[in-house]
Amino acid sequence: MTATIRAAEGLVLPTYADVEAASGRLQGVAHRTPALTSRTANARTDASLVFKAENLQRMGAFKFRGAFNAISALSPDQKRAGVVTFSSGNHAQAIALSGKLIGVPTVILMPQDAPAAKVAATRGYGAEVVLFDRYSQDRDALGRELAETRGLTLIPPYDHPDVIAGQGTATKELIEEAGPLDMLLVPLGGGGLISGAALAARALNPGCRVIGVEPEAGNDGQQSLRKGEIVRIDVPKTIADGAQTAFLGHYTFPLIQNLVEDIVTVPDSALVEAMAFFAERMKLVVEPTGCLAAAAAFTGAVPVAGQRVGVIISGGNVDLAAFARFIGTP
Amino acid sequence: MTATIRAAEGLVLPTYADVEAASGRLQGVAHRTPALTSRTANARTDASLVFKAENLQRMGAFKFRGAFNAISALSPDQKRAGVVTFSSGNHAQAIALSGKLIGVPTVILMPQDAPAAKVAATRGYGAEVVLFDRYSQDRDALGRELAETRGLTLIPPYDHPDVIAGQGTATKELIEEAGPLDMLLVPLGGGGLISGAALAARALNPGCRVIGVEPEAGNDGQQSLRKGEIVRIDVPKTIADGAQTAFLGHYTFPLIQNLVEDIVTVPDSALVEAMAFFAERMKLVVEPTGCLAAAAAFTGAVPVAGQRVGVIISGGNVDLAAFARFIGTP
Repeated sequence: MTATIRAAEGLVLPTYADVEAASGRLQGVAHRTPALTSRTANARTDASLVFKAENLQRMGAFKFRGAFNAISALSPDQKRAGVVTFSSGNHAQAIALSGKLIGVPTVILMPQDAPAAKVAATRGYGAEVVLFDRYSQDRDALGRELAETRGLTLIPPYDHPDVIAGQGTATKELIEEAGPLDMLLVPLGGGGLISGAALAARALNPGCRVIGVEPEAGNDGQQSLRKGEIVRIDVPKTIADGAQTAFLGHYTFPLIQNLVEDIVTVPDSALVEAMAFFAERMKLVVEPTGCLAAAAAFTGAVPVAGQRVGVIISGGNVDLAAFARFIGTP
Repeated sequence: MTATIRAAEGLVLPTYADVEAASGRLQGVAHRTPALTSRTANARTDASLVFKAENLQRMGAFKFRGAFNAISALSPDQKRAGVVTFSSGNHAQAIALSGKLIGVPTVILMPQDAPAAKVAATRGYGAEVVLFDRYSQDRDALGRELAETRGLTLIPPYDHPDVIAGQGTATKELIEEAGPLDMLLVPLGGGGLISGAALAARALNPGCRVIGVEPEAGNDGQQSLRKGEIVRIDVPKTIADGAQTAFLGHYTFPLIQNLVEDIVTVPDSALVEAMAFFAERMKLVVEPTGCLAAAAAFTGAVPVAGQRVGVIISGGNVDLAAFARFIGTP
C-alpha cells in the first residue's frame, strides 16, 4: 500500500515507478558503485554500517544519475532544443556530461567567481557556460529567461521529478546489494538525493528509517521539517559546499515531510574527521558534503548502536590541494 | 595442459589448485574487492583498463589474502604453537590480524626504527612484537632462530607456497568479474603477488600476458629475469616501500621465470603522478607501491593501446601526512 503524498497544486510527485524507470535508463551508463564495509567503522559505532560509495560514480558524485535520467526522459523535440541549468557544483558537470553522452546541447549558468577549473571542466564536456554575477543577478530568473528565449528545458539541480527519481537509484542498488537495513543516513542539501532515497526505501525496505544529515550552519531542512513549511535561510557558511542550499524544493519538501523520519546536523569539524577516517581507514577520497551521513553515525548525532545502517557517501569532488590540507593537518 | 615448472630441489611449487583452495578459505573473510574502471584512464591510455582495488582489502592491502591463507593451512599442532614472521610493512599486520581471527599466537620481528604507529597497530592485533637492529642483525636468521627455539612456524612475506596461493585469489576474482584480459600489470616486490597472479591467469585466461612492474631504483626482478638467476641488490631507495625487496624468492623466481612475460620499471615521480590521478579522478587513496602497475600503463613503460588490461592496485597503506604531501604539491 502506497499512500498518496500531496504536493502543491499542479505538481505531480515522482513515485518508485519513476525510480525503476530511471534504473533502466542508467543501466550500463552509470557505475553500479560498490557497497563497502569497514570493521573499524563498525567497531567505532557498535553498528553494522554499509557505505554506498557514490564518490566512485561517474563524475565523482551521485548527481550523474539524476542529470542523465532527466535528459534521457525528454521528448525528441526537447532534446534537439537543449537544456539549461544553474550550478557551480557537481550538477553542472553532470548535466554537461549527460548532454554530451545523449547528444543534447547544454547551457550552464555559473557564477563569475566559480573556480576556473570547474568552468573549464564544464566547457570540456562541450557545454556552453554563461557567467553571471551572483551578487546582483538572480540565477533562477536568469535560468527561466534563458529557457524561454532560447526554447531550452530547465533542469534544476534537485527540484525536479526525474532528477529525484534518478538519485533514488543509488538507494535501490544499495538495498538490493546489502539487504534490509534498519536505517539509512543521507546527506541533505536541496533534498534531491534523500527524496529519491526515501522513495526507494519505502518500496523495497519499508521498515527502514530514512534520516537526513545537514551541516550545522545550514539547517534549513531541519527547520522546515519541524515547522511544517519550507524555511529559507541565508546561504550557509560550511565546507560542505554541496549542501549550501538555502531552501528545500516544492517537490522535495513534501516527499521529505512524508517519508523522512528526522533531519539532524553535524559541525564542519566532524566532516573533517570523517574525511580523514575515509582516507586513512577506507582508502577513499570523499568531499566534505559526502561525509555528512557518516559523520552523523560517528559523532552519535544519530544513535546507531546495534543497528544495520546504510550510509550514503554522496561524492568525492574536492580540490586536491584543499583535500591535502584537510587530511594533512590533524 | 599445465607444464610442470621446475624449482630448486625439495621445493614444491604452488599450482592453481592451491589458489582455488585459498579462495575457499578466504570466502566471507577477505573482501571481494571491486574491479573499477575510469573513462579518464581509458582515454589517457587508449586502452580499456580494469583496476583491482586491493587498497580496499581488509588491512588496506592484498597481503591479508596470503597471510590468512598460510595460517589457515597449518595443522592443529602448528596453529597451537603459533607463527613468526619478519616485516615492517603490510605483511606484519596481515599476519597479526589473521592470527587474531584464527586464534593463532603471532610473533612479529620488526626493526627498532619501524614507525611507532606500525608497531602499535601490530600489537593492537594482539601480536608479540620483537624488535631488532636491522644494521647489525640478520632478520632471516633471527626468524629461523625464534621459530626453532619456540616451536613457531615461520611465514615469510612472499616466499611461501600458501602465501603465493592466497595472493593469487585477487587475480582469480578480477578475471571472474572482468572477463578475459589481454594483459595483466602487477606490482612486483618479492614476487608473491605476481606469482599468484600468474598461476590464476594461466589457468583462467591463458592468453593473458602477465607483466611485473618494479620501481626504477629496485629492478632486481628485471635483472633476475634477464640473467636467468636470482640477482641480489642493495635495499633500494624508493618511495615504493612495499617493493624495497632486494631479491626474489626460491618459490617466486621459478614461477616468474616461467609465467611472467616481462618486468618493467617506473620512476618514483610516475608513482606520485599516479597517486594524484587515483585521488583526483578515481577518489582512491593508493600507496606508492600500489601505483606501480598503473604508472606503467600511464607512462607507456608498457604499451597498452587498444588492449584490455587488468591493473592491480596492491594497497593503500600510506601515512596520511605523507599522502597529503604527495598529492598536495603538484
